[in-house]
Parts: sequence; C-alpha cells; structure tokens
Amino acid sequence: MPSLGWLLALSLAALTGNAIGAAADEQTERNCSLSPPYLPSTAVNTTLQLQELRERMLPLNISAYIIPGTDAHLSEYIAQRDARVAFMTGFTGSAGTAIVTQAKAALWTDSRYWIQAERQLDCNWELEKDVSSMAKWLISEVPPGGKIGFDPFLFSLNMQETYSDSLESSNRSLESIPDNLVDQVWKERPPIQPDGLTHLPNRIIERSWQIKVKDIRSQMQDSPYTPTALLLSALDETAWLFNMRGNDIPYNPFFYSYTLLTMDEIWLFLHMDRVTEELKVYLNASCEGPLCVQLKNYDTVRDHLKTYVAQPGVKVWISTGYTNYALYEVITPEEKLMTSFYSPVLETKAVKDETEQRILRDAHVRDAVAVIQLLMRLEKAVPEGKETELTAAQYVNECRRQQKDNRGPSFETISASGPNAALAHYSPTEETSRRLTVDEMYLIDSGGQYLDGTTDITRTVHWGTPTSMQKEAFTRVLMGNIEISRTIFPSGTRGINMELLGRRALWEVGLNYGHGTGHGIGNYFGVHEWPVGFQSNNIPFTTGMFTSIEPGYYKDNDFGIRIEDIAVTVPVQTKYGHNYLTFDTVSLVPYDKKLIDTSLLRPEQLQWLNKYYETIRRVVGPELDKQRLYEEKEWMLRNTEPFMASESSAGICSSSLTLIILAIALLHII
Amino acid sequence: MPSLGWLLALSLAALTGNAIGAAADEQTERNCSLSPPYLPSTAVNTTLQLQELRERMLPLNISAYIIPGTDAHLSEYIAQRDARVAFMTGFTGSAGTAIVTQAKAALWTDSRYWIQAERQLDCNWELEKDVSSMAKWLISEVPPGGKIGFDPFLFSLNMQETYSDSLESSNRSLESIPDNLVDQVWKERPPIQPDGLTHLPNRIIERSWQIKVKDIRSQMQDSPYTPTALLLSALDETAWLFNMRGNDIPYNPFFYSYTLLTMDEIWLFLHMDRVTEELKVYLNASCEGPLCVQLKNYDTVRDHLKTYVAQPGVKVWISTGYTNYALYEVITPEEKLMTSFYSPVLETKAVKDETEQRILRDAHVRDAVAVIQLLMRLEKAVPEGKETELTAAQYVNECRRQQKDNRGPSFETISASGPNAALAHYSPTEETSRRLTVDEMYLIDSGGQYLDGTTDITRTVHWGTPTSMQKEAFTRVLMGNIEISRTIFPSGTRGINMELLGRRALWEVGLNYGHGTGHGIGNYFGVHEWPVGFQSNNIPFTTGMFTSIEPGYYKDNDFGIRIEDIAVTVPVQTKYGHNYLTFDTVSLVPYDKKLIDTSLLRPEQLQWLNKYYETIRRVVGPELDKQRLYEEKEWMLRNTEPFMASESSAGICSSSLTLIILAIALLHII
Repeated sequence: MPSLGWLLALSLAALTGNAIGAAADEQTERNCSLSPPYLPSTAVNTTLQLQELRERMLPLNISAYIIPGTDAHLSEYIAQRDARVAFMTGFTGSAGTAIVTQAKAALWTDSRYWIQAERQLDCNWELEKDVSSMAKWLISEVPPGGKIGFDPFLFSLNMQETYSDSLESSNRSLESIPDNLVDQVWKERPPIQPDGLTHLPNRIIERSWQIKVKDIRSQMQDSPYTPTALLLSALDETAWLFNMRGNDIPYNPFFYSYTLLTMDEIWLFLHMDRVTEELKVYLNASCEGPLCVQLKNYDTVRDHLKTYVAQPGVKVWISTGYTNYALYEVITPEEKLMTSFYSPVLETKAVKDETEQRILRDAHVRDAVAVIQLLMRLEKAVPEGKETELTAAQYVNECRRQQKDNRGPSFETISASGPNAALAHYSPTEETSRRLTVDEMYLIDSGGQYLDGTTDITRTVHWGTPTSMQKEAFTRVLMGNIEISRTIFPSGTRGINMELLGRRALWEVGLNYGHGTGHGIGNYFGVHEWPVGFQSNNIPFTTGMFTSIEPGYYKDNDFGIRIEDIAVTVPVQTKYGHNYLTFDTVSLVPYDKKLIDTSLLRPEQLQWLNKYYETIRRVVGPELDKQRLYEEKEWMLRNTEPFMASESSAGICSSSLTLIILAIALLHII
Repeated sequence: MPSLGWLLALSLAALTGNAIGAAADEQTERNCSLSPPYLPSTAVNTTLQLQELRERMLPLNISAYIIPGTDAHLSEYIAQRDARVAFMTGFTGSAGTAIVTQAKAALWTDSRYWIQAERQLDCNWELEKDVSSMAKWLISEVPPGGKIGFDPFLFSLNMQETYSDSLESSNRSLESIPDNLVDQVWKERPPIQPDGLTHLPNRIIERSWQIKVKDIRSQMQDSPYTPTALLLSALDETAWLFNMRGNDIPYNPFFYSYTLLTMDEIWLFLHMDRVTEELKVYLNASCEGPLCVQLKNYDTVRDHLKTYVAQPGVKVWISTGYTNYALYEVITPEEKLMTSFYSPVLETKAVKDETEQRILRDAHVRDAVAVIQLLMRLEKAVPEGKETELTAAQYVNECRRQQKDNRGPSFETISASGPNAALAHYSPTEETSRRLTVDEMYLIDSGGQYLDGTTDITRTVHWGTPTSMQKEAFTRVLMGNIEISRTIFPSGTRGINMELLGRRALWEVGLNYGHGTGHGIGNYFGVHEWPVGFQSNNIPFTTGMFTSIEPGYYKDNDFGIRIEDIAVTVPVQTKYGHNYLTFDTVSLVPYDKKLIDTSLLRPEQLQWLNKYYETIRRVVGPELDKQRLYEEKEWMLRNTEPFMASESSAGICSSSLTLIILAIALLHII
C-alpha cells in the first residue's frame, strides 16, 4: 500500500461525507457555529483532559504544548499507549499533531482525514488543514518571548530543527520537557504488554545476531569519523540485529527497545520483566565480553547514554531520521556526536541475504493463494449481491490465516469500491462499508505477516463492463507497473530516478497519481520498510532489495485503480556491460483481464506480461495443488492464459504475416 | 556541452599520454622520483611564488593557505586575473584547488586533468587525485590547534561549511583572511578591463530593468520571512536584472558587480571608472527614489553591507550557492539573515519571456547554418586528409562569426576524433590536435554567443564505415535524446526525475555515460545557466525554460559519442489532463544518418525524428536561401530526407501490409 508519508497531493476537495457511505439524512459532522454547537454521536468530549493538561502547563510557564502522533522510536505505526493525539482530541486517524495553549486547541491532519476529524472532534478543537502551518500558528498564538513545550522523546532531531528554525528567528523558544504531560493526565493509559518477546527460529536465519553484531562493528571501524558507539533507536533496528520479534505495535512485530553497541559491549534496553530465561541464554546475557548482551531496563537508556558520553574519547553514531531528541540532546559536546540519516543497521538490513530472499519469496506464494481465493469468491458472490467491502476484507485475511506461519495482516486492509477507492487509503468500517456490485470497480490492498516474510499486494477488478476510460486508465497503470518491473539499470541507481517509468504511460494522456511509487518491505517486519524505495530519501538499489511497485490512478468520487506488486532486485546479463540489475516480481496474482486494453501495450510489455503469467502458473500452480484448491487452480489457469500478440497493436504485424502466408497459400492453390 | 560539475565517474584510468596525441618518443610528463627530477618543457617553475606566499603566511600564524579556482562571484568560468591556481601552480585546467603549507604544496583536480597536471606542475607540487580528500590532507599536514587561512571572497557559504564541519571536530580552525595572499605575491596580475559595460538594445527586451526590479521586490514582499533587502552576488544576476552585459570573463558576457536591492533603494556595485554617461542615464543614476540606481564602487560592497546590516529591523536575503563567505560573515546576528539556495532573480530568470524565447530560437537558426557549413566542409575535406581537430574548431567559429549579431564562441570548442572524444571534454591544441580521418568517429561540441542568444550543440559523425557497435551505441544515444525530447510530463516535474529517459536505451545493453544529461542556457549569457537542467539541485520544469539534452557514450581509448540539442519546455494538449508540458527542440542540425540503425527505433521515435527533420527543412531552409548558401541547402535537404518506416522493426509491419495489399490485388487479378 502507498506509505502514509507519500500522499503528495491527492485532491480530495470534491469529497463529501456521503461519498464514503453515510446515510444521507444524518448530519455526521460537527457544526460549531450553531448555538448550542451540534455534535454527532461520534464526537468525543475532551473538556476534562484539556483542562487537566492546561493545569499542568501552568507551573512550567509554557504558552503552548505540542503533542505529536508518534512514539519514542518515531514509528510509523504506534501502539494504543502512544495514541496521545487520539486520547487528547478524540481523533483516531493515523496522522495528526495537536497543539494546546491556554486559550486554544488545534489539530493538524492531511486531507485524507478531514471528514473523519470533523466527525470525531468536539468544539474545543480547531481543525487546521495546512500541515505546514504549525510554526505560523504558534507564532500567532504564543507571545514573543514565550516558551513552547514538547516531549523530546516524541521529536526526531530533524523535527526539532525544523520547528526551532522557524521559531527562533521570531523570539519564541522550544522547551524540552522529558516528562510527558499527556501521560500525566491519561489515567487509563494502556500498559506495556507483559510478554511477547521471541527470537526467530534457526531454520529461517542465515546470519545469527553475533554475525550481525560483528558486521556492524566492522562498519563502525571502517568509518573515517571513528565512532566508538552506535545507538539504535528505530524498533526494527534492534529487532533485526538480534533476530527478535515482539507484539507491541499493531500489524508490526516490534517491541520497545534501544541498543547501544560499542566495540566490546552490547547494551540492550528492554522492559526487563518481559525477558524470559530462554531469551537470556539466547542473548548470552550472563557473561562478559564483546558478544555478551547486557540487558538494561528500557527507561534507563537516556541516563545510561549520558554516563557513556561523559567518558573521554567517545563518539556516538546516531541516525538523524530515527533518533529522538531526548537522546540526541544528552550527546554533548558536538565532537562526541556522529550523524547519518540512516544507521548502518538500516542500510545493511536493506539487502536481504539468500535465506531471507528465499523465504520472502515463499511467503508470497502462500499469500498469492489467499488473494486468489478472495478474487474467485468475489467473482461468484458479487453478482449475487452477497459481498461488502468489509466482508471482502475479512475474507482475505481469513484465507491468509489458513496459510502456514501466518501471523495476521500486515496493515489494515484497504477494501474499497467505486468512489471509496478514489480515497486511495480508505478502510471500511461497519458504518461506511458499501455493498460490492458489478457496476463499479473494486480495489483491494492487503498484506500478511508470516514468520518468513511480510506481504503487500493490490489488485483492482471489475465484475461487469468497465468504461473505456476505466480500461484505458487501468491499462496505463499496468504499463507503469510493467515498465518499472522490466527496466534494466546499473546497480546503484536511485529509485527516485526511475519512478517516472511508473507514471509515463499515464502522463501521455494527462493522468497521474498523488502518492509514491513504492516502498521497501521486511521479512516478518514492517510493511513499509525504509530505506528502500522510490522516494528521494531512499538509498540506491543494489542486488537483493525488496520493494513494492504501485502506480495508480484515482478519479474523485468515481473510482480508484492501483496495481501493487512486490519485486526483488536481481542481477541481469547485458550485451556490453556488467553490474546491471532488473526487478523480479514476487507477488504472483493475475491482473483483471477485463480491464486490460492490449492494443495499448507495446510488444515488449505484452511479452513481460506473458512471462509473468507463466511464472504464476509454474510457481503458484503446484502450491494450489498441494493445498487441494483445485477450483482455485482452474480459476488461476483461466486468468493466466497468455495474451495473444494479435490482441495488441504489434499484433497487427504478426497477424498481417499470417494473412500474407494465407494469401500466398491461396495464390498457390489458385 | 556537459557542465564541469557533472562529470560523475568517467573512467579514464586506461588513458595514456599518447592517447591525446603527444609524440611517442618524448617524455611529456614530469618525473619527480628521478634525481635530478625530470621536467618537461611545459612545466612551470613555481619556486619563487611559493616562497613569497610562504613568507606572507608566517606573520599571520597560519599553517596552511587554501587557493580555490573560482572568483568572488563563484563563477564557473573565471577571468585571467582570477586564475590564481594557474599563477601559483602552473596548471591551467579549469578545475583545481591548491593548498600550501610551509613544507608542502598540493593541487587537487579531477581525472580529466591528471595528465595535463603532470605536464604543467613542477616538483614543488603533489598532485592529489581524490577531490574529496582535502580536509583529510589538511588534518594530516596541520598540527592540532593549527589555523588554516582562506580568502572569504573565494568561498561560498556552503564551501566554508563543508570545510569547517570536517576540520572543527579535529581541532583545526579556518581563518578568514579577506586580503588575498596570492594577489599580494602576483606582481603582474592582469588589471580589470577599463571598458566594456553595455546594456541590451530595446528591440530584444520585453522587460525593462525597472519592471524586473518591481517584480523582484514584489517577490521579496511576498516572502513570509520578511526580507528588507536582497543581495545579488552571481554575475548573471546583476547582468540580468539591469539588462546589461560586459566582457570580464572569457566566453561569458559578464562584468564584475554586486547588487543590493531594498524596497526603496537600489545599490549597484561596479568599477566606477567603467561607467559611461550614457549608462548613468540608462540607470537613472542621478535621481533619488525607488527606481533610481545608486552606483557604488565594486570594492565597497562589504563595508556597505556591514553598514546596512547595522540598522535595526533589516533582514538580508542571500543565496547560499552564490554568495561568498566574505559577504555572508558580515550579516550578523542570524535574525538579519535569510537564505535560499537560489536567489529569486535566478529563479525568475529561468523562465524566458516571449521575446527571449523568440530571439533565442532565432539565434539557433543562424547557429544551425554555421554547424551545417562545418559538417558539409568536413564531409568533403576529411577524405582528402585536409582537416584536423583544430582546423575544424576554428572553421565552425569562423562560420559563426559570419552570422548576424555573433559575439564569439560561448565556450572553448570541443573538437575530438577517435580516442580524444572518449575524454568527453577534450579541446585540441597545436600540440595535441589529430588529423581527421574516415576511419574514426568525430565529435564536435561548440556554441556561439549572439546578441540575442547563446547556443550549444554537439554532433557526432563518421565519414567512413562505422562498426556495428558504434552504430548501436550512437542509435541508443539518439534514442535517449529522442525519449527525453518527446516525453510528456506535468508542469513542475524535476529534470532529475526524467533524466533516466536519456540513459535507458543504453542501459538495456549495459552502456552508460558519466556526465549529466543537460543544463540550462542563457540569452547572450552563460552556456551553463543554473538553475535549469536535469541535476538534483535544479528547479522543476515549467513553461519557457531552455535546457540542453545531451546523452552520450564514451569508449576509453576508442571513441566518444554525444548528441546535444537545446530544447524549450512548451505546453502540450493531452487527452484528459491540463498543465502538461513537452520539449520543443530549437537546435536544428541533422544527425549523421550513417550512424543510425533504424531497426532499433520504435515507431514513435522514428516519427519524432521525421518531424524534427521536417522542422529543420521548414525553418533552416529559408535561412540558407536567404544567405545564398545553396550548396549547404542541398546538403541539408539530403541529410533530412525522411526515414522510411520500412527501415525500422515497426516497418516490417507496414511493409507486410503492403505485401498483403499486393497479394490481395494479385488474387483479384487472377
């Protein structure tokens, strides 16, 4: 699915409440200009928590307090206990920042969530729609000389710099308050899970944690900036290094943790009560030496780091993108700090080893079975009026649960028909779920967590007769997917420099899409795994990286198209050069033939498509047999029949040749 | 031609001195390991100037002194009086930085210039080949606590930051020394030209300088950062704003100048003795008011800026890319500074107005005549053994001089045959110039300055029988040129996101090139005009921007191919969308038909090519008639005959159709 940070400019201005399925006769959004104000039943009364927060702001002498929507690890998905914005505002969307002064309270969120915010906010809150306006708002609400409080654990170094650049020149200052004020007010804040820490079984591991530690240490040693320690803050960094998983974050097998790695010590910061004896043995926790892990309580990381930094001659390597300001600010003076945007762990993790590649491919074969099961079922049930967006989403995840080593979905399923699909990121709820019909297009973007891999795939289908514009748009989205997939490029090429291939067929007729073209993906990890992908801050592609490829097209209030596959970079032979790569698609589910206008495809695109279908037959066929899903196999075979060249424009050529032969034959006969 | 900053990774390791034409029996490079050292006649004895520089370093207590190869305006091309690196080292290449300590002297330059450096340096100098190693070298040569002197006028703010980031953490500091030490030693330093300042004639101006000043002031007013003044440091900024030109820099009609623009005053810093009475009238120099220019002496800019900044409530807007550190450092405290990478003048200048577009196109028509004259002459003279790289370069510029409003070449002509062309940037000299033959490929990259525009074009030709590899490489370079030229993209797309189209046909067979894909170009201005182009720091394309498109391929020690055209962004109608652009090529010279393998071209590429040739006939034909160049016109017509579809793979298709019709006809007859 398109990553949250990637929604560039989806124009949703024309969107109305009705478009996402609310009954027409009900007023679903608040109206604060009425007296008394009108609040729908979905709005949350936040008067009490606001009052308590403001009371706590007073003795600190701060004029405003910022509440970001992330956690101390700057995670994209957060646990319920970190949903401070939702607790304070009532708004539960996945992107939002709140700011509270004594007089006002405001929430910033992007266009995807404006309607939801109007339904959930009470009239204590202003909804601010320009997410770049926070500094301006602060300057207008905070008097000169005023202080603005923030929790340094919830700010990345980069975020802090952005705020302070704007505020400093106008004589307002940021004040770091490590003891979170919302948490003080939040009586019922969910606790940490008491268990859930595991390590991966040996059968799916090529590099033990000891080997990984040695590798990272040698990278530290090779750095010209001579770091003596590496601090890991992002949750997938520690989880990857120790081959461990947890269950602290929905959809993401992560656990709260930090690591401080030096040349001869390893400190792992965890909630100690969750650590089993078996895990202690696994981590060599009872010895001393460079490959023994010293377990420390999670909450001591800042103090421990401070003590480490106080030693002479040390220098700590941190990533500016994933280290919170609370840890950054204790690393002084500047000579003791070394920064890079990504840590060496994130960069190393980006290249999957042979075993990871193999098992991630395997997981995609089982995942394809689940998606094929869904598509077959919908094809039968939709014409009978039997399915809704919600039942479809539930069914595909039920099918996944039947697959070996499944660990649930990898994100909240996007199951959207007609205009809902134009929202790009819509997930159905009981209230909004629409019935699927043969008259509308349907988009499903879903994925699974498996012990051996994470999946993410989008298919768009039509069970009736698509319009010619829908066929053209779908075909051009498909052409974008194919053009990226089949492109040959030198190892080291950046995704951002290739992503136009996903858009070019659309641009030719004046169509486009407002999100990114693909993101990295993990092995039983995050479904959006940095730093791989097609964004400007992604690292260059080398062999063994997995990324999604997902162009789309969205017509406001009408339909949405996205075709998403996961692909891995593989070496390719070229006529003259060395060290060239291409993509090998590992998602193995056919596209809706009804939506493909083969006359638009160039011969090489058609060839790619047929080869892809051949691979589906060769790889998924035996798996369907093994699972005795014979009807599904028939469905798959029907839907992967090769496209005939004669269906395409190039085909005119070969059919002409046939005609010639025919003509010549006729001549001879005569 | 490819911009200097763009040479990425041209692998010239295999290059030998002989390859660029030196006689085989002569030792052309220095050998400092011999005793006494061997120095060729081209080496320059630098002992004296080094000794004098070192004497001047002593009282300042600096351990090292940095000598950059730029001027106070951070110009790409510099005047002779700013060639301090050449004066100190003997090395005359266009890219180099020197550093001197009491014990050592070192020169850094990139791979294009290593051979030249070995020929020109004496044994006082080390040649350093890793241009990123300067900070490391300084740390090894300067003791801890040591100071490193630099002339702040020759450092951009960004350069200073790069150095100081590396040096500060290792306890060495940079010391700004505004009085240049090399200039103190340089007795015979060329003086400023006493004249040469002009303004453009009205007939080629759409926006008077007063209109431009108003436009820039309104941009200052619109800035949320409330600047009160704008400082212009790059030479083309002031020249553009006042529609003025000069002759201080070879190939570039620039003059030494700065501008400080506020809402109600304009200060223009010039060498006052060059200002004529007519120019004073043109600039409203004798009045007071917001549209009167106050002329100040060039050398007073720093003091004037200091005085301006001392006033309360002011804020100066500077560009970090083009402002020298000497001016930056007087703008304190930080609240008085506002920065952007490009100034609003550079961004405004990037979009040419209607008149600029028209006259720039016109200049290209006359320029095409000159290049056609050259190509025709070479076709006749080369088989007779009559031409060399040097005579060809001279001839094309002679032809340009015959054209209306020509003001000389826009850069040193690259005229390179066989292995010399593999160097990408080679210009012939008396010593290195090779004879042109029918057995080798030949590349000519040249351009002219015209009162109405600047041109830059590259053609690669073969007068004998090219190898199939040469044909394939040329055709794939051409495909790259065509694919960029014909692409349709939303206004606002960045060049860096499109430039893969220039490489993709090469990548498919494992070929590539090591320079950028295109750069902006001016109206009687710089041949490399920022901020337009295909680099990561170029601004997004909108209507009316001119850029070069110049993919290439270089085979070490063998041949080089580059096809370069100038194109302008123009609006294009699409089926569904609005605000889409494409390129319109304004360079109008045919490509060498002999080198095109049409079977590789896709039908739409062939169609583009034929349409381009049609344009050459339609536009250049009448100009050749007008100039009575009838033989040249015949040559042009011969070389722009349309390619038949049957020559390409797609052509098989149409010829099949012909066969069918034939067959059917035959059937009927029978």
